Amino acid sequence: MSTVELAVSSPLKRFREIISQIKQYEEILGVVYWDMRTGAPRKGIELRSEAVGALSSETFKLSTSSELGELLAKLNEPEIQAELSEIDRRLVEESTKEYERNRKIPPELHREYVVLTSQAESAWEEAKENNDFAGFVPYLEKIVAINRRFIELWGVKSTPYDTLLDMYEPGLTTVELDRLFGELRARLVPLAEQIANAKDKPDTSFLEGTFDKEAQKTFSKLILKEMGYDFEAGRLDESVHPFATGLSIGDVRITTRYLTDDITSALFGTIHEGGHALYEQNIDPELARTTLSTGTSMGIHESQSRLWENMVGRSLGFWKRYLPDLKAHFPGQLDNVTAEQFYRGINVVQPSLIRIEADELTYNLHIMIRYEIEKMLFNEDLNPRDLPEVWNKKYSEALGITPSTDSEGVLQDVHWSGGAFGYFPSYSLGNMYGAQMVDVARREIPDLDDQIASGQLLPLKEWLTKQVYQYGKLLQPAEIIERISGKPLQSSYLCDYLENKYREIYRL
Amino acid sequence: MSTVELAVSSPLKRFREIISQIKQYEEILGVVYWDMRTGAPRKGIELRSEAVGALSSETFKLSTSSELGELLAKLNEPEIQAELSEIDRRLVEESTKEYERNRKIPPELHREYVVLTSQAESAWEEAKENNDFAGFVPYLEKIVAINRRFIELWGVKSTPYDTLLDMYEPGLTTVELDRLFGELRARLVPLAEQIANAKDKPDTSFLEGTFDKEAQKTFSKLILKEMGYDFEAGRLDESVHPFATGLSIGDVRITTRYLTDDITSALFGTIHEGGHALYEQNIDPELARTTLSTGTSMGIHESQSRLWENMVGRSLGFWKRYLPDLKAHFPGQLDNVTAEQFYRGINVVQPSLIRIEADELTYNLHIMIRYEIEKMLFNEDLNPRDLPEVWNKKYSEALGITPSTDSEGVLQDVHWSGGAFGYFPSYSLGNMYGAQMVDVARREIPDLDDQIASGQLLPLKEWLTKQVYQYGKLLQPAEIIERISGKPLQSSYLCDYLENKYREIYRL
Repeated sequence: MSTVELAVSSPLKRFREIISQIKQYEEILGVVYWDMRTGAPRKGIELRSEAVGALSSETFKLSTSSELGELLAKLNEPEIQAELSEIDRRLVEESTKEYERNRKIPPELHREYVVLTSQAESAWEEAKENNDFAGFVPYLEKIVAINRRFIELWGVKSTPYDTLLDMYEPGLTTVELDRLFGELRARLVPLAEQIANAKDKPDTSFLEGTFDKEAQKTFSKLILKEMGYDFEAGRLDESVHPFATGLSIGDVRITTRYLTDDITSALFGTIHEGGHALYEQNIDPELARTTLSTGTSMGIHESQSRLWENMVGRSLGFWKRYLPDLKAHFPGQLDNVTAEQFYRGINVVQPSLIRIEADELTYNLHIMIRYEIEKMLFNEDLNPRDLPEVWNKKYSEALGITPSTDSEGVLQDVHWSGGAFGYFPSYSLGNMYGAQMVDVARREIPDLDDQIASGQLLPLKEWLTKQVYQYGKLLQPAEIIERISGKPLQSSYLCDYLENKYREIYRL
Repeated sequence: MSTVELAVSSPLKRFREIISQIKQYEEILGVVYWDMRTGAPRKGIELRSEAVGALSSETFKLSTSSELGELLAKLNEPEIQAELSEIDRRLVEESTKEYERNRKIPPELHREYVVLTSQAESAWEEAKENNDFAGFVPYLEKIVAINRRFIELWGVKSTPYDTLLDMYEPGLTTVELDRLFGELRARLVPLAEQIANAKDKPDTSFLEGTFDKEAQKTFSKLILKEMGYDFEAGRLDESVHPFATGLSIGDVRITTRYLTDDITSALFGTIHEGGHALYEQNIDPELARTTLSTGTSMGIHESQSRLWENMVGRSLGFWKRYLPDLKAHFPGQLDNVTAEQFYRGINVVQPSLIRIEADELTYNLHIMIRYEIEKMLFNEDLNPRDLPEVWNKKYSEALGITPSTDSEGVLQDVHWSGGAFGYFPSYSLGNMYGAQMVDVARREIPDLDDQIASGQLLPLKEWLTKQVYQYGKLLQPAEIIERISGKPLQSSYLCDYLENKYREIYRL
């Protein structure tokens, strides 16, 4: 070993040990969160939240220790940087960012926040079930207040909300997002109007009825298998709010929600979460035991869920192949429906109240509403207590409909109970990233549509693994999209895709 | 505050913080173990085991820290002891014992052991499934070797195996256990012989057949509810080897195993684990956040599982009340069976290979075999590789039958894969404790049998809560049985109970 090699190896070894321990604790906390959301007994929640708080604090301590700080200072020296592998260099970069960010938060505040958000999720569930926004307000006020404090501590970027945005999509700003969302609005609102005036509307009557829950489960599993989801490295459960959680590359779990009066909820929910899971299951095992073995940003993550859900799962080819299977699961219920009819039916555009049930087109309007409200909360000091009023007004303006209860309005989403302000834009970013990726995929896999129509979903999965999944957090979101398409993120691909799709469906 | 009060309050506060953190980490590890046994994906096991190792190490560090040692030294000073509450005094006593015990184990050895036993459980499951004892030997050898090392470090009591026994039943010795088991053998073996020669044998033909799994689930839940098991503070799942786990007083989980060709497996397995769970759910909430909020010993724990399983669940009165419900769950399958016939059928005595399926009488012989083998492993250096031979020989001698595969022989139990040597005797101790307790309960609740026969199981649960459950680890096992019966543990109550029961059933 050279002198430099020696100078590298010892701090690097210790640094990797600490990172590995942080990753291990995060994995264990992930198991506990999964458990809390999939059926942990009610009476244990209070103590469990405290326990989660204790372990989160320990993890936080590890990630802010002076020892880690000294190791990072050493590993950031130019002479040593030059000796690091690509993975180690990126790990040092990412850890330094996290370290600097976390060091600004007092440990007691961090612990308070963890316990608070852990309890708030149960409170939100109860509030949603009982249409009791007032019961949720005390939690929400505290969560917003602590987030405002975090922003002060981290430092306000051009606006306070920019500081939050950057957490989910590194480098993204409200200026950029205002522009992208402006472009989307400029093309999608007129499209939505054309559709509203269209004469030839899809028939959706066959989607009504009662669909056996066990059959929905079996079909969900079948589709996940077809997508290449590895059931030996994951499992499918039920929860109030569907989610995917990558505990490790070998354990990436999905939940879904079965509604007997709506077959599409579990169907597209499962494919959506399955897309997240494919990403996490196919990260290069070299990244295991590091904090790089996860998705690179929430926008890229949602690009995968939304791509599989919509560009694959709501495509005509997909239903040419899988409608017969679906019919076999619900004998007598869909007998006279053709693939074309089914495709048109599941793509009906209809302003609606619930984001996760929205069509591909108006979905983006749901996101913009949340984005605007979040900006008001953090840039204009909107009082959380006033959220229902603002929410209902915006829905009425943008979609022409108003929630009759808070449960189907401001209480519908879990995100804010966990403090995930700045997350919602990821979904529309995901739609844009996904459309831009598929544009390239279509050129590189010329028979992509035929493949999907014949049930060959794995080549697309392999292509995405090569382009996106394998890298985990090794590449930044901007690098990913640049490498694939040679361009930064643009809104035009999504607009083109939606215009083409809906002009055909609505015969405009 | 007086000077002494001040001298107490500060170290006591910090001591309770550390204990609370240990308890919280144990709770979280409990969730992860539960998850690993109830369906965690196979490909995640390796990393998960490492993560469990990391958190266990941290817990171990907490429980052996010099800070804790200094606090305990302080809190053990006579002047300060006098000021402590009963709970704190017992907590200090228990923690001091644990501290002294743990300090003797090198942290690296502890970590190695945790990772090893965590992986060994999966290896055992695979070995059992494939009847591959050889595949399990490497794990078993390492586990035994480390346990031998632990014994050296802790210090050999009168024999090496005594050191292990004391861990599960504080104060118990091989001398005492040899005597108790000798007494049991002297009365139960002749009873078993009389039964073997009896002419009037119970009919068990109605237990044959195929029993719908979903109906078994529903009935299991019904019985648990009747016992007073709180489903808001627990849940029922499935696992290869049934178990109960008290994560906190508000979250005590049970698993069971449904066999479609054997209705008794889930039935009595569920009641057994339900008994464990009643214990943990009914500990005084004052003990929450301390390491006293668990059962006081494995013997007392098993007394509750075995008492509910056998003295309640296999009693005539119980089936007078619940057979109609059982029949309703399996329409047409048990129509012509009377409560008396059912009672006799489920109490048939039949030498068999599988411990958890054994009748109440020969069950104790299964335990004695394991006890003798464990003594050979640790007091006579028996090589783990030779276990199948020794096992089969002992079964042939004691029960007159020989396993045809290791899966139904030496591989049948999970315990050794987790290193739980010294645990098995707890089951027969439990049978003895239970019989001695019920002897008193019958006198204090004169109409106990009538209550059970009318489905009033809650008064017995309340009596046991008052006598046993509420105390958690606040009282020692010897104190519990002395307080209840005014005597130390004796074998005669169990022998009397079994003789009475079986003389009636077999009309001897």
